[in-house]
Amino acid sequence: MIVASITVYVKPEHIDDFIQATIANHQDSIQEPGNLRFDVLQCQDDSTRFLLYEAYDSESSAAAHKKTGHYLKWRETVEPWMAKPRTGILHTVIAPDKREQW
Amino acid sequence: MIVASITVYVKPEHIDDFIQATIANHQDSIQEPGNLRFDVLQCQDDSTRFLLYEAYDSESSAAAHKKTGHYLKWRETVEPWMAKPRTGILHTVIAPDKREQW
Repeated sequence: MIVASITVYVKPEHIDDFIQATIANHQDSIQEPGNLRFDVLQCQDDSTRFLLYEAYDSESSAAAHKKTGHYLKWRETVEPWMAKPRTGILHTVIAPDKREQW
Repeated sequence: MIVASITVYVKPEHIDDFIQATIANHQDSIQEPGNLRFDVLQCQDDSTRFLLYEAYDSESSAAAHKKTGHYLKWRETVEPWMAKPRTGILHTVIAPDKREQW
């Protein structure tokens, strides 16, 4: 299992647009067979800062996500709304360590 | 619902100690009635960097966690193993927006 945590800073005037586009990406992404989670979160202290928490059952499932139509559409749609390039960190899962706990 | 993402940098010589203590905290924390997730993750590019992803069903459940014996024990145990103070960010949940999806 692998988790990507993506931090995104959005231009204030596009916060609502970003939320709608990212909810759509969430809804499609959780249908991918190798997806375990796709959480969309907004920082309480800074409404322009978002965290996407994406868990997959393997490296290949994570890579497959980046080839889906919904991901490519999301990336193209939200790109001009970002205040700066997004940052992503890949993680190995320590706990919970069983797939069915995800 | 509320999610805290905690980033911890651990001294290299205490990585294994930190993992064991944090797995114990995970096991107790997921038993809390208001806890929805307590994921423990290790950065793939930097084995000294960890992410704790803690979801609760309310602000009060998140606050209650910080009064539990297992949290207080964890905090005291791992404090000297940290390379620098940990950082935590609180988030509002956008998706999934139903408790049963957590």
